[in-house]
Amino acid sequence: MNFKRLTLLLLALCPFLLAAQTITSPDKNFSMKFELVNGVPTYQLTYKNKPVIKQSTLGIEAKNVPSFTDGFTVTNTAQVSVNDTWEPVMGEQKTIRNNYNELAVTLTQAKNNNRYIVIRFRLFNDGLGFRYEFPKQDGLSYFIIKEEHTQFKLAGDHKIFWIPGDYDTNEYAYTTSKISEIPGLQKKATIEINAQRPIENPSVQTPSMMKSQDGIYINIHEAGLINYPALQLNVDATGFVFSSHLTPDAVGNKGYIQTPQSSPWRTIVVSDKATDILASKLILNLNEPTKYKDVSFIKPVKYIGVWWEYFVAGRSTWAYGKENNVKLTDDFSKLTPNGKHGATNERVKEYIDFAAKHGFDAVLVEGWNIGWEDWIGNWKEEVFDFVTPYPDFDVEMLHKYAESKGVKIMMHHETSASATNYERRLDRAFQFMKDNGYNAVKSGYVGTIIPRGEHHDSQWMVNHYIHVAERAADYGIMVNSHEAVRPTGLNRTYPNWIAQESARGTEFEAMGGLAPEHGTILPFTRLMGGPMDYTPGIFQTDLSYYGTGSNQRVNTTLAKQLAYYVTMYSPLQMAADLPDNYNRFLDAFQFIKDVAVDWDDTYVLEAEPGDYITIARKAKGKEEWFVGSITDENKRTAKVNLDFLPKGKKYTATIYADAKDASFDKNPQHYEIKTITVTSKTKLDQFIAPGGGFAISIKEAAKK
Amino acid sequence: MNFKRLTLLLLALCPFLLAAQTITSPDKNFSMKFELVNGVPTYQLTYKNKPVIKQSTLGIEAKNVPSFTDGFTVTNTAQVSVNDTWEPVMGEQKTIRNNYNELAVTLTQAKNNNRYIVIRFRLFNDGLGFRYEFPKQDGLSYFIIKEEHTQFKLAGDHKIFWIPGDYDTNEYAYTTSKISEIPGLQKKATIEINAQRPIENPSVQTPSMMKSQDGIYINIHEAGLINYPALQLNVDATGFVFSSHLTPDAVGNKGYIQTPQSSPWRTIVVSDKATDILASKLILNLNEPTKYKDVSFIKPVKYIGVWWEYFVAGRSTWAYGKENNVKLTDDFSKLTPNGKHGATNERVKEYIDFAAKHGFDAVLVEGWNIGWEDWIGNWKEEVFDFVTPYPDFDVEMLHKYAESKGVKIMMHHETSASATNYERRLDRAFQFMKDNGYNAVKSGYVGTIIPRGEHHDSQWMVNHYIHVAERAADYGIMVNSHEAVRPTGLNRTYPNWIAQESARGTEFEAMGGLAPEHGTILPFTRLMGGPMDYTPGIFQTDLSYYGTGSNQRVNTTLAKQLAYYVTMYSPLQMAADLPDNYNRFLDAFQFIKDVAVDWDDTYVLEAEPGDYITIARKAKGKEEWFVGSITDENKRTAKVNLDFLPKGKKYTATIYADAKDASFDKNPQHYEIKTITVTSKTKLDQFIAPGGGFAISIKEAAKK
Repeated sequence: MNFKRLTLLLLALCPFLLAAQTITSPDKNFSMKFELVNGVPTYQLTYKNKPVIKQSTLGIEAKNVPSFTDGFTVTNTAQVSVNDTWEPVMGEQKTIRNNYNELAVTLTQAKNNNRYIVIRFRLFNDGLGFRYEFPKQDGLSYFIIKEEHTQFKLAGDHKIFWIPGDYDTNEYAYTTSKISEIPGLQKKATIEINAQRPIENPSVQTPSMMKSQDGIYINIHEAGLINYPALQLNVDATGFVFSSHLTPDAVGNKGYIQTPQSSPWRTIVVSDKATDILASKLILNLNEPTKYKDVSFIKPVKYIGVWWEYFVAGRSTWAYGKENNVKLTDDFSKLTPNGKHGATNERVKEYIDFAAKHGFDAVLVEGWNIGWEDWIGNWKEEVFDFVTPYPDFDVEMLHKYAESKGVKIMMHHETSASATNYERRLDRAFQFMKDNGYNAVKSGYVGTIIPRGEHHDSQWMVNHYIHVAERAADYGIMVNSHEAVRPTGLNRTYPNWIAQESARGTEFEAMGGLAPEHGTILPFTRLMGGPMDYTPGIFQTDLSYYGTGSNQRVNTTLAKQLAYYVTMYSPLQMAADLPDNYNRFLDAFQFIKDVAVDWDDTYVLEAEPGDYITIARKAKGKEEWFVGSITDENKRTAKVNLDFLPKGKKYTATIYADAKDASFDKNPQHYEIKTITVTSKTKLDQFIAPGGGFAISIKEAAKK
Repeated sequence: MNFKRLTLLLLALCPFLLAAQTITSPDKNFSMKFELVNGVPTYQLTYKNKPVIKQSTLGIEAKNVPSFTDGFTVTNTAQVSVNDTWEPVMGEQKTIRNNYNELAVTLTQAKNNNRYIVIRFRLFNDGLGFRYEFPKQDGLSYFIIKEEHTQFKLAGDHKIFWIPGDYDTNEYAYTTSKISEIPGLQKKATIEINAQRPIENPSVQTPSMMKSQDGIYINIHEAGLINYPALQLNVDATGFVFSSHLTPDAVGNKGYIQTPQSSPWRTIVVSDKATDILASKLILNLNEPTKYKDVSFIKPVKYIGVWWEYFVAGRSTWAYGKENNVKLTDDFSKLTPNGKHGATNERVKEYIDFAAKHGFDAVLVEGWNIGWEDWIGNWKEEVFDFVTPYPDFDVEMLHKYAESKGVKIMMHHETSASATNYERRLDRAFQFMKDNGYNAVKSGYVGTIIPRGEHHDSQWMVNHYIHVAERAADYGIMVNSHEAVRPTGLNRTYPNWIAQESARGTEFEAMGGLAPEHGTILPFTRLMGGPMDYTPGIFQTDLSYYGTGSNQRVNTTLAKQLAYYVTMYSPLQMAADLPDNYNRFLDAFQFIKDVAVDWDDTYVLEAEPGDYITIARKAKGKEEWFVGSITDENKRTAKVNLDFLPKGKKYTATIYADAKDASFDKNPQHYEIKTITVTSKTKLDQFIAPGGGFAISIKEAAKK
């Protein structure tokens, strides 16, 4: 089934190897030139003959051995062309094409006993990936990275959607500015976030999304972050030069290398169409196929959970007791109940009933286990034990109850960023899950990391997340990590690591609100790395509704919340609101019940970062399509061309749209649902309210 | 059976509580005075009316809350007297008396919202223990220690047996000097040791052994080091003042406290008889009883092992392959065998045969598992997996072979100080042991700690060692840790943590040699904290014997090696030499076969730190006694008074002694064995050669 064409063009080894080499993308739109300049490696990238990356230097500064920055000669070059396809366990497409031309340059330092490295470039039709490789060789086994010096010399003062560089959090709101404006805006952009560790010099995080004045979209990120610290970008705002800034460890080092080892891929996705950026599979293609022998336990999940009510001020709490100082050795049944504990047997049974009634796979329960009374802000090593429930949560009874209803309970492992404590208890925690019928865990890393001095994005933690994913796979468990390092396509290699948060998600709608444009930026930034557990589906957007004193509001219309299920890709999707609220809007809720979470194909119909996104997807293995469309604070009319539908057939489309008088801040719950017949020739003009959106489900008309 | 008298003298709470309080030891020899001086807590200690600790201040400097150093008033004092006994799982005595007078002083800081702490003093007949307690209270839940400020103002320029302060190693040779000479000798004393991290200012480690000019012996250490960094001592060499210097963590903090929590006990063991120092059980008494419900798996162990041959240069190696760069993912069967791998099936079977023939419980096998090719010095995270044997080590076959001979194989877990890697794999490692019949593990921590920035003695690692001990207990496994933080009597609380190295042990006899006096100092220093796996029993002391190019030599006589089995207490004792060497001296080897490793009682007959030690012990549950006596580089005649024997009975004593012409550097293998009849009235004058010793086994004559 896979189409594979592999051409090996090994350059004949000759005494005077060219110090400059150029490759083009399969479609010839890209050209990448590698050149050694006075012994220093450089690369440059053009797209449709326009410079995207001007000549930029490459190199690794080492700490305990000579650096890999200069004094190089080219001692070998090799070119390969690959064009094949592969199938992800779950994804936006059933089949992914992997088509690139590769140049591998072997660089030797005569001054250092002919020590050599390889820089490997892969040029796709959607951009460039390259990495450093440190082959196993006599005289190079171990070294420590002081800094990676990869430059991205941009061709102009692009518009950029950015969050400030930080070793510990990705939960910033996005700032849109020119590159030249970043230093002046950095302080304002660095809003206060729990356990943050901002970089002092001007810097941004990846995925970094840009748009040039002449309409070229450029996304810089990394792929395959394994056993290496996460990449941040220093910003030279006058020269428009980004340069790599690795996350340091507790002693200030930036990577421990044992040959053979490679850096992650540095990725530059480029197009003159924003829709191509969203459609790019370059990052996934650069990740390694999974080594798991068994992936049968990995399945898409649609879930509800005892969760949002914790964000509605004064409604319920993770904690059971009133106390603010507890230890795992305490007898929690002796605590003074605060009367607002969320994860009670009664409440969880209600959620299970609702999940069963409406066809959800699972019910997440946060706050089920002891330790929440003082879980945050104390840099506490032993926060949770992951196996002991509160007195009002009966694990066995609820397991049986859920099982009888065909629903899974989703485990929750908040670590409070004490990775140490989690690692020490991990096997017991997973065994407990297995013993009690759990097959998925939402993990959390809120706080300052333990081991102290490490960061959410440092190499030690990068290894930790992967350790957890691999160990979870050993137990047949899926992982959805929150506050972990942002994803880099590792869901290909570790497909049970099905989703992550790692950005400013829906919870912030209850903590100050998200800008209406936020959802139009995330797919161009955070989601470039992988699926996001954005937890959409908030129908009751005005939280003053609860009468608990909250004056917070979710800055979207109800219809936009539906659209997110399509625009925010994840094989794990939550319906995050309270069952009571869904019961009030069951007609709209029908879309959440219907929408697929795993896909045969995806069609990015319209997109402009910061403004709007319209995406259509075909459900995996079904003749059903779903469309989501969102806008920023401005209303608009979306153009929805249904030509992705099979020709010659009639389909029934149910459109969940904003009412004319709706907007994110007025009448957000005004929506209209209509059913029409469509074909592949249908072109819809669909109104979207300010901060709004719409969702469409399309099924074969015959089945209606 | 336990005799218990408990008197509670709660001082009536009155408006003007005394700012000074004095308690005496049960035998009245000690007097400890607590006094608040301008709001600063102080204590002083006298022994037989002589000052031992002059008025010294106490306090804890905090980082994120006001410090606990001054502004105190005494708001409560309480005195308790305790006199009872308890039985250790294994030990030098079957029954241990616990007899002290206690003063607990509650100190309140009016300036800090009446926040309070307790300083608890326990005055025994052998010295003082005290600790800081941070009770749970409103307004004091969490804080970070910047430094502990506990002073020990000594009464003079004592002679001291010391090793320099270091956060990562205790494996220094001892220096003997006056306190005033420490700064001048510090550089010389700080010999090069793998992964050391010496403290820059003048400092010494505990246990710190001193002797005053008027013959008072003083030992300063700590008891019950749990969830707190290890204590080091700053040295003020002009004022003869020691002050606490806690081991920092990766970010420079010195302890994370959550109330209720206590510091470890600071211990000062004092006597005018050196023998009393060795007999002291103060440190064990200050540790908590075990919480283990099942201690039946904890048993004394006498073992041999594939070990010493690794220290005989060129003889055999831990590593299997010639390669110097390996990963756990490599196929080790594809390595190039170096031809000298020690842990082969054939070799291990020989050891098992020898162990079975001579009645040993176990055979330690080091170098059985993959990863030894580049295990040291690379700060490598994934060094060992603890479950994969080399191709020439058949776990199942050897397990069955050993089992058929009634011998256990002892597991070896070298971590290379990557505690992170060990924790991630710990459950699998212990499960592997259980599945393959292992019930004891020797663990090692050679190298610079991972998590990076932590130290062997920092709080994170202190918690790690205890985590390992507790988890091992869950699997019914005993632990013997090498290169861990030095012990503080925790073998009472975690009795499966049966022994440790944590000092310069026998291995250094093959790496430069130990001073002949070394063995006379260790019981006064390192062993004050707990049993040491000293690994004695080297009969072939001149390593040039092997013809492998080694010119090393063990600086003892053969007879002294026998004496160590009695003078170096441990319920785990190794016969460390090669079976071939024991076969050459089977008559002397008989003592090692006979000697007990667990005891009903112990009699310290003679002792002077740095000079000599003579100890007799009664075997647990048997009418057998064993005597060990050692000297430094000077010959001497030991006085052995056998009045510990039951009266009116005749016993057969077998004496293994140095020959007249023996010494550590000439004729070390010249020894004489004679058998005599003895009674409780016998007083032996026994010659000891320079660097020599003797051992005596005593059995009932009738059984002969």
